[in-house]
This record gives sequence, C-alpha cells and structure tokens, in this order.
Amino acid sequence: MRALQWHGAHRVALTEDAPPPRVEAPEDAVVRVVRSAICGTDLHPYRGEIASFTPGTVTGHEFTGVVEAVGPQVRGLRPGQRVVASDIIACGRCWWCRRGAHYQCEQVGLFGYDTVVGARPYGGGHAELVRVPFADVVLFPVPDDVGDERALFIGDALATGYACALGGEVRPGDTVAVIGCGAVGLLAAEAARLLGAARILAVDPVAARRKAAAERGAHALAPGDGLSEQVRELTRGRGADAVLEAVGTDAALLSALEIVRPRGVVCAVGAHASTAMPLPTVIAFAKEVTLRFAVGDPIATREPLMELVRQGRVDPSFVITHRLPLTEAPEAFRLFDAGEAIKVVLVP
Amino acid sequence: MRALQWHGAHRVALTEDAPPPRVEAPEDAVVRVVRSAICGTDLHPYRGEIASFTPGTVTGHEFTGVVEAVGPQVRGLRPGQRVVASDIIACGRCWWCRRGAHYQCEQVGLFGYDTVVGARPYGGGHAELVRVPFADVVLFPVPDDVGDERALFIGDALATGYACALGGEVRPGDTVAVIGCGAVGLLAAEAARLLGAARILAVDPVAARRKAAAERGAHALAPGDGLSEQVRELTRGRGADAVLEAVGTDAALLSALEIVRPRGVVCAVGAHASTAMPLPTVIAFAKEVTLRFAVGDPIATREPLMELVRQGRVDPSFVITHRLPLTEAPEAFRLFDAGEAIKVVLVP
Amino acid sequence: MRALQWHGAHRVALTEDAPPPRVEAPEDAVVRVVRSAICGTDLHPYRGEIASFTPGTVTGHEFTGVVEAVGPQVRGLRPGQRVVASDIIACGRCWWCRRGAHYQCEQVGLFGYDTVVGARPYGGGHAELVRVPFADVVLFPVPDDVGDERALFIGDALATGYACALGGEVRPGDTVAVIGCGAVGLLAAEAARLLGAARILAVDPVAARRKAAAERGAHALAPGDGLSEQVRELTRGRGADAVLEAVGTDAALLSALEIVRPRGVVCAVGAHASTAMPLPTVIAFAKEVTLRFAVGDPIATREPLMELVRQGRVDPSFVITHRLPLTEAPEAFRLFDAGEAIKVVLVP
Amino acid sequence: MRALQWHGAHRVALTEDAPPPRVEAPEDAVVRVVRSAICGTDLHPYRGEIASFTPGTVTGHEFTGVVEAVGPQVRGLRPGQRVVASDIIACGRCWWCRRGAHYQCEQVGLFGYDTVVGARPYGGGHAELVRVPFADVVLFPVPDDVGDERALFIGDALATGYACALGGEVRPGDTVAVIGCGAVGLLAAEAARLLGAARILAVDPVAARRKAAAERGAHALAPGDGLSEQVRELTRGRGADAVLEAVGTDAALLSALEIVRPRGVVCAVGAHASTAMPLPTVIAFAKEVTLRFAVGDPIATREPLMELVRQGRVDPSFVITHRLPLTEAPEAFRLFDAGEAIKVVLVP
Repeated sequence: MRALQWHGAHRVALTEDAPPPRVEAPEDAVVRVVRSAICGTDLHPYRGEIASFTPGTVTGHEFTGVVEAVGPQVRGLRPGQRVVASDIIACGRCWWCRRGAHYQCEQVGLFGYDTVVGARPYGGGHAELVRVPFADVVLFPVPDDVGDERALFIGDALATGYACALGGEVRPGDTVAVIGCGAVGLLAAEAARLLGAARILAVDPVAARRKAAAERGAHALAPGDGLSEQVRELTRGRGADAVLEAVGTDAALLSALEIVRPRGVVCAVGAHASTAMPLPTVIAFAKEVTLRFAVGDPIATREPLMELVRQGRVDPSFVITHRLPLTEAPEAFRLFDAGEAIKVVLVP
Repeated sequence: MRALQWHGAHRVALTEDAPPPRVEAPEDAVVRVVRSAICGTDLHPYRGEIASFTPGTVTGHEFTGVVEAVGPQVRGLRPGQRVVASDIIACGRCWWCRRGAHYQCEQVGLFGYDTVVGARPYGGGHAELVRVPFADVVLFPVPDDVGDERALFIGDALATGYACALGGEVRPGDTVAVIGCGAVGLLAAEAARLLGAARILAVDPVAARRKAAAERGAHALAPGDGLSEQVRELTRGRGADAVLEAVGTDAALLSALEIVRPRGVVCAVGAHASTAMPLPTVIAFAKEVTLRFAVGDPIATREPLMELVRQGRVDPSFVITHRLPLTEAPEAFRLFDAGEAIKVVLVP
Repeated sequence: MRALQWHGAHRVALTEDAPPPRVEAPEDAVVRVVRSAICGTDLHPYRGEIASFTPGTVTGHEFTGVVEAVGPQVRGLRPGQRVVASDIIACGRCWWCRRGAHYQCEQVGLFGYDTVVGARPYGGGHAELVRVPFADVVLFPVPDDVGDERALFIGDALATGYACALGGEVRPGDTVAVIGCGAVGLLAAEAARLLGAARILAVDPVAARRKAAAERGAHALAPGDGLSEQVRELTRGRGADAVLEAVGTDAALLSALEIVRPRGVVCAVGAHASTAMPLPTVIAFAKEVTLRFAVGDPIATREPLMELVRQGRVDPSFVITHRLPLTEAPEAFRLFDAGEAIKVVLVP
Repeated sequence: MRALQWHGAHRVALTEDAPPPRVEAPEDAVVRVVRSAICGTDLHPYRGEIASFTPGTVTGHEFTGVVEAVGPQVRGLRPGQRVVASDIIACGRCWWCRRGAHYQCEQVGLFGYDTVVGARPYGGGHAELVRVPFADVVLFPVPDDVGDERALFIGDALATGYACALGGEVRPGDTVAVIGCGAVGLLAAEAARLLGAARILAVDPVAARRKAAAERGAHALAPGDGLSEQVRELTRGRGADAVLEAVGTDAALLSALEIVRPRGVVCAVGAHASTAMPLPTVIAFAKEVTLRFAVGDPIATREPLMELVRQGRVDPSFVITHRLPLTEAPEAFRLFDAGEAIKVVLVP
C-alpha cells in the first residue's frame, strides 16, 4: 500500500509498496485512512532529534478513516463505520486506563512514533491503511453529520488543547494567556472559551500565527521583554488567571510562570524535554502558583468534544492552512517544518 | 422624588412626591437610578399574592445608576461612579456572607420587596433615587465601556440564570434543558453555553418565548405530554444531562425530574412556593438524581459576569423587549403581567 | 448445593439440592461463598412487598468468597483467588459504566433479587456457590492481609455508606447528621469521618442503634418533634452541614430536609419508593438545599475503600451483631426482620 | 513590656523595656499573649540569612492570647476574649482577600518578620503584648473548651499543613508521602488523614522526627538513594498519589517529583528560595505531574480546623517537644536551630 516512511533527518519518502496492515490480535481493527495530519510532535524525528528512531517507520498519529476489518473480540465497531483514531494507543483495562489516564497505560503506544512512547512500535496514519490495536478503545465513531476534517483533530490537537484548558483550571470570566499559537495553542484558546474564558491573550513570535489567533477573537501579543508588562497592564497589574503553554521549551514555560497571576495555574502541554529547566522556586512560592504538565488524552475527552463539534460550538478545522495529497507528503513536511503552515492535512 | 408605589393587587401608581432617600447609616450610599427593570418576582405582590405587602412600598430590585452620596464608612465607592446594584442586600461579614451565601445573610433584604425577604423593608429601584445599605457589598462598579443595559441584569436576571447553570453542574458537551424561557430561563441558557453546553433544549408554552430561545440557538420544545419522548429521542434515550428550571411551579419541576437523565442534575431557580409538591422518590432514587434549589447571588458572581459582558462573551440585553419611561411604569407592569413582554426596562 | 430460597412472605427455606451454578458465558466466574450477609433490601421480598418476586429465588447480594472457575474471557482472575462481589452486576463497557454509573448499566442486575433491578435474574450469595457474570467487573480481589469480614461490606453496605457521604459533599470540619443507624447509616458515619467530618449527629428511634452510633463517637439523637430544635442548638442555630439519610421513608427524608442548614446537602441512600412525597419546595428554595439520591456503587469505589480497610483506617465489621451458619438462615432473617440485629453474617 | 528582639545572626535577646503596643488604627486590637511558638521561618533571620532584617524587631508569628483592647471599628471582638492570631496579616477586603488568598493581600504582613513579607513591619508574638491590625480578620475566637496549646497552631503550622494536604489534592484511599517531618510536615500528615489518606509515608533524615511520624501511624523512611525504590515497592511500582513537601529545598522538591506517581500532585509548602531549581521537565511531562506551591492561610481555613480540634478529630499539640518561659527564649531558639526540638512553645 501507499505510505510515508521515515528514513532519517529531513528524509521522509513515499512508498507504494508498504506491507498492508492486517488484523493481528483479536481486538485489532484495520482502518482505511480518509484524512491525516502532521503534528508538531512529528517534527522531532523529522529533524533527527530522536536517535533511536527506526528507519522505515510509517509516520502519523492524527487520522480519520473507515473501518476496513475487525478482529473477533472487537465489539463496538463494524466494517464501513467512520471513525477517528486516538493518537494514543491504550488498553482500556489497566489501573491507569480505569482512571482515565490513558497516556500512562501499561501498554501505551503512539501511532507512527516507533518506541519513543511505549515499548512496541505501531505503523502510523500517513498511509492508506492502519492497524489499530485495542480498537474498541482507540477508535471513536464519527456521526454522519460531522465531516472528516471537523472530526480529525479530536484525535490529537483539539483533545490536547482541551486538556490544556482543563489543566489550566479555566473558569468563567478568566483572562487566559496562550503561549504558542500553533494548532494546539489555537485550539487551547478555543477550549478556554468553551470553559468560559472572557478573554484570550495569544502569544507567538510569528505574525501569521498571531493573526490567526486575533481572527478568532484573541488579543495577540509578541513574546519578549515587554510581555510581562503588557499582560500586567491588561490585567490590572495581576497577571493572567491561567496560562496555557503549548510550545514545550524552557523559555516558553518560564515566560508562562512570569505572566501568570499569583494563585494562578500554568498548564504545559508542550512536549517538554529539558533535564534542568531553571525554575525560580522563590517566585513560584511567593505567587503560590500551580504548574501542571498534561498530555492530551483523546480517549478520555472525545465524547464531549465530538458533541461540541457536532453541535457547532467549535469547529477545529479552522487551523488547517494546507491540504495536500499523500503523494506530496514530503513537501507537506517541509512546509510544516519551515513554519509556513499551521496545520497540513494529507489526503490519501 | 418620582417613584412607583404598590397599593394593592394590580395597583401600582406613580408619585412625584416620594420622600427622597438619604444616607442613614455609615455604610449607606444613595444611588440615582439610570435603568431599572421589572422582574418576575415583582408579579407576586402585583397579583396580590402576598397578603402582608405594605401599601406605599416603592418597587423594583433590578437597577443600575450613579452614586449620589456615600456614608463615612463606605470605602470602595465615590459619588459619580456608575454602579449596578445586587437585588439582594447583604452585610458581607456574617458567617453566611463569608462563604458566599448572601441570600442567607443574617441581615438579608430585597429592594422594593417589603419584608418578604428579611426583616427590614427597603425602598426599590423603580424610582429616581434609592438608598443602598452595605453599599460596598451591594453595589458593583460598571466599567466605562459597559453600557447600562448590558450591566443591568448582572444585578439579578443574569446572576440568577448563571446560578442555575452552575447549580445544574453543566459541563462541556452537555445537552441542557431549560424549562421556562422568560428572561431568567433565556439567560440560564446563555450561562449554560458559557459553561460549555453543546446543546440547549428550551421548553416554554409561549411561542414567542420559544422563538426568542431558538433565535439564540436553542432547540425549542413545547411542554406537555410529548416532551419526555422528544427529549429522549434527542438524547439517545437518556434524557438531558442537566435541567435548569426557571418557572417555579410544581408542574415545571416535576417535568424537569422526568426529562433529566439518570445521574443528572435538576437546578430549580424558580421561586417555589409549594408546601407539598408530590415528589416521586421512587423515580428520583432509581435515576439517582440531584435536585438543587438555588437563588441567584449577584454579589458572589458579578465579577466574572461583568468581565464576560465587558469582553462581549455574553450580552444579556437581548432579553429586553420593551423600554418605557418610569412615568409609564403602570403600563409596563400590565404588559409584563399579561405575558406580552419578556423584559421591560424603565427609564427614570 | 446448599442454598437459601425465597418462597413467599416470611418464607425462606434452606435446600440442599439447589442446582450448582456454572460458567455459562465466557465472562462468567463461579465463586465459592465464604461469608454472606443479609441486607435491609432483602427485607422487601421477605416481607412480601414485591408481588412479582419469583419463588425459588436464591437470595443474598453481599458476599465474599473464592473463585472456583472462570470463563475463557475472564482476564484478571484465577481460581483460588479471594474476592468480594459487588452487589450490582454491571457490564463495565456501556455508556453508563464508562462514566462510573454502574447502577445505570444497560445490563444491570442485582444478585438474588430476581428482576426487580434489571431484566435478568441472578442467583444470590446465600448459597455455597454463585455464578458471577462480567466477573472482571463484578469481582474484586481481596488482599491476603484483609480478612473476609473486613472485606465483605465493600460489596454493599460500606460502599453505600460511602456513596452517601460523597453525595452529601461532606467537607472537613462539617457537622454531619445521619438519619438511620442500621449498618448503612453507621457506615455512612464512618465514611463521613474519612472525609473529615468534625462531628456526627446520629438519629435513630432504636436505643440499641443509637448506642452503636455513640460507641463510634457520634452524638446520638432520637427522631421526632424535638429533633430540629436539638440540631439547631448543636449547630448555632444553623442546622447540619450535610444530612445522610439511610432509611428510605418519606418521614426520614422530610426530617433530613428540616435539619439540614441552608445551602446544605441531603443525600438519600435509603431505597425510596414513594410516588408522591410531599416536598415543601417553599422551604427547599428558601434554604437553597441540594437533595441528592444515590445508590451505592461498589465497582466505582471499592479500590479506595479496600485500601482504607487494609490500612486500618476503617473496619466495617463492627456492624456485625450476629454470625450464623447458612443452615440457620431462616432464623437469621427473622432476627433481622424483627430489628434484633444490625447485621447478620452467614457462614456456608 | 517584656519581648524578644532580634539583633543579628544568632543573636536574639530578651528585653523588659520594649514599648508596649497600643491601638493605632480604628481596626486594631492589642492582644496579651498566652502562648507563642517558634516556627521554622524564624530561623531565616536567626541564621542571618536575611540581610535587610531590622535590628530590634520583636519576633514571632504564632501566638494565642486574650484581647486587651480594641479600636472603634473592630466589630467581632471584645476585651477578654480568647483568640488565636493568623500569622498572616491581611485586610480582608481587597480583590485577593475576597477570593480567600490572604497571603496575596495588597496590605499583607507577617508578625515579627519585618518587611520580608509586605511593606510594613509589625511587632511579633514573642512578647507580652502584640498590636494586631485588621483585628476582625486576623484574630479568631477560641472556644472555651479548646485549650491554648490546641488552638495555637491553627494560626500557622496546622493551617500550613492543611494547605499542603489540600494543595496535594489528597483523596480517600491515597498513599501520601510527606517530605520533612518537622511540625508542618507532621501536621500535613494529620491533615492528609483528615482528607482520607489510607497511608502516610513520612520522609526525614532525622531519626527522632521519623519516630514522631511513626508514632502517629506513618510508615517512616529516610531520604536518599534508596527512597524512590522503597516508595515504588510500597505502591506497586506506581509512586505516591500525592507528595507533601515541607522542607523548602531544591533537593526535597526534586525528591518529591521523583517519588510522586504519574498524574499525581506535589504540593510544596516549604519556603522555597531558589532562583534556578533544575526541574527535569522531561520527567514532569512524561508523568503529567502537577506541582503546586502553597503558603498556609489560617484566615481561610481556621474555621473547619478549629471545629476539628474542638471535636477531637485532631490535636496538633503533639508536635510540642519543649515548653520554656519567654525569658528563656534565646535558649529556645538555640534548641530549635540545632534541630533538638520539633516545636518549642514559649510562655510569657
């Protein structure tokens, strides 16, 4: 089958001859992909930052499609059903899954991400077909009246943005700062609004991203020296009630801690990788701050999100800036890596 | 001064000679009214349902205005400041006030409502001037960029609708039924949206009210025999996640209990007066329902509400169907009592 | 096998020839009972209050034992394992189960209770062996260092008392009234303490039950005319912060509403069966009360409860007043029905 | 009057001639001290770590006493009333105080701590008399049936421990690790039990402190290399559900992050002063940890705490290891600084 494979830093290539996946375990399904997307997380292997990444890996963990086949123990799905996949693979039965912490699942995996998350590799969604383990848990039906592109991000970017807003404990009337206006940051802002935020302050160094945030009603700001002062001016000297950090760098997180008000909450949903971020505990203590790290969990949150999408309360597809055929996936990666796109959708 | 006075069932009359209020206690303020409104609660004395009501009472508990004078212990206000009053008068210091339960205040009162709530009568807002006790607690500044009609309902109808949505424990993605589409019900629906409701089912026997709800995006339904079945059809047989009851009758509340799903919450914000509503505990237990009674509390909720109004997240003034000069207040009462108006605003 | 069977009002009889249960479905287990108990719910069929009850039904829904056999799709259990059963049978997979509302499960059942709860009858625990459907969901392992009688009530009475305290929103420092000092009420009091209650007011007409409550540190009170006044005196005139109602009658629930303070919570865990309890909404509204109905859910709460039992934070076996061999079960029912026992445990 | 004054590193001296405080502002009270205590926070100036500390400062922020005099605007207090003071001075009226964040009060102060917290210095409780600003807010009546030593720590150490347990989101059944078994850590453990913790793991390098924790039912552990492994063994490999950090050093906090389970909460109540604690965000993100900094707030929590003390649910006086007359306060400081005492109480 047709699929995109990783071969090394900045080297992803299309093949027509990837072995088509099949039902291997009784709880597996195979899904025919209808739409997939490139996620910021995909840039880590793309940029060669993950030494262990296995050449030949089929990439992609954000996709919708149609069930092609199911194993004998799959109960809730049938061939022909439209579905959106969770980026996270989880068993649904272990201690962690039972408390809704699917990223901590004892058998966790991430589509198209080799063994960076979990012990077993799984082929990804930048392909015609995908094998989906624990299909009853990982897949979620898409109602007839919800199009693929509206459903797509429930499997990752919207769920992650929503996790960030929940983790930020956003309450009605709050002023919420969002640091990083990529797809996840923009959708974190949408989620903050769904939780009642009165005002969004959107921070990003890239003008086009600030523009995207402003078009959705945010007050856009550039990061840097003047940011703290600007946030203070906008908040009667207090700082933001909640800060949603969707970048994943030390600088972004330290900036979040600077602009959050005393007793406020910073939720970091960016994939942090520092071993020694210099945290000023003297300030965190004086401000009585809460700092929460969250990974999105589509399995835990997709039901309300699907309902909100279906009823038109949120349409996450506005983050799509580019649509390309799967055959042009290498170009899509290049665009996304260069910061020329907010979200690229691939059509098999 | 000019004021509207209650004289008996269906008899309210304008006088030009009401004694102008003045600062009587060190924490008092006097407010010059800019806008006032008639509330459903006002209909109880208007209809002669409250035997003890004192003739001559100046009515009205929903008003905005400008501070005219302050007592020596008023700290946060100065003459000239635009304010919205809480309908509830509360001391701000007692055991109840300290936990944000101002309606239970040991010195609670209600403007223009004689001694029906609390032990002491206070003149109301259907007048040129109003004496406001505990002014630092009861009054709230209105920002320059918020007009009077947008601020007005923060003092009662919006706060009450919001209390109803909070009491209903509305969560993102919920289907929320609102029973009664008067001003409070319509604003409860707005509040439910602010808390993330995916869908509002608005129930009212009056077509004009259903139309008003539908224009705000609700799915409008008529009460009666088919209601339960309709709600079940719309909710996969489950019932509404939360039901916000803004009528105050046995029939409305029993209907709410019927259409709420198992494990759902009914919040009744209508002013209930039954001594023996026939509650089917067999059903309430089988469904594991929560039934909560709430009175709105503007003092507890006005800050986030003002911020939401200011940032344009909600504009409660859409409920206004009529604006009349104070001199035509008797006609305003007639209109409202006849169900010809959703909300009437009076201009002094 | 040996089992107790229901044959009509006040007629339960032991048989030695009940057909031994076996694994019928792939998710079934069979459990050899080690301890079982009689629950207040059992008195409804015993007293002939349930017309539809099927003669020959093996009674009992509170039991611990050892796994005897498992079906091929049971994953988490093996023969020889000590377990406590949930009184509620639930599938663990439906919409309700996924949100932890197992009593609302689409396939709900109750051991030994015929089709009063759910559509299918299941034999009960007053027997040597019990068939357990959805065994991975319904059964819970008992650690080696927890004896059977300490574990037994996690399957019903303790879980129900805990649900009542949770539903009552008990907070640290609260004064909590418990109405009804049978096993569930006594364990609701224990649960309230685990949630930080400062003081328990225990209400029961039976002196022996009041004594049992007092021995656990409660302030015991008799119901009746003076109760409200006594509660007010003990609470500075306010009323109880939370009231846990474990009786199930109109009188008990109305009393709960009377003694709860404004803004307090009443949680009713008694099995209510009234079609028209005369609820004074005028008072409920004035007091802004929350009235919650809850059925215990061992599946949702057994993990923390087992840990609390294991660590010695609570030992629910204190409610046991009688231990009898299964062969004397008819006498056990008589004792319990006569109010001469708080909890009777049967030994097969 | 008699008072203890700070004169420099390791130099505190008793004077008989300190100027007696008096009512200076209308909301002031003067309190005659009955019991005071030395807090770990006092060691910072004692050890000369605060360069700006003003010589002559009367130390001490933990005290109970009797109201000696009140200003004309003090409402809730009268001379002769027994009271416990909050360590934090707060106005009770500002934006922060209104949401229960008294440490963030615009006029915050700390008794006996110069201008390290807040802009204005206030004399402390290691004296015969103390001036108490905002007396209605800062002082809390002590019921007749609660002795001074049981009430004393509600003003600081118990409130701080309780803030830590609340901030740690301790839930029934949790395994809670407490790092640091000084008075605050020991009382955090008590508070965790009040919130339902099943088990306390108490970590301290000092054997006497571990012994004190073990006597209260904790499982005591030494910090260091083997700690993580030990915690994992005790928690089925998961880690502690919540970690309460009551030390205030980088090492303690990093250890807390190491032993907390994924999705767990670390609450740091130790007075952190690092400008660059090396936070491993890669681990915090992978574990989806919440890290919360909290300062105790007696004003916000003293009511339930007093009720819990009064009803005997907790008796914080067990942390007292030494009682000395105020005249021996220099020796008391020496003992405490040397780690020879857990808590020293001074009697004027």
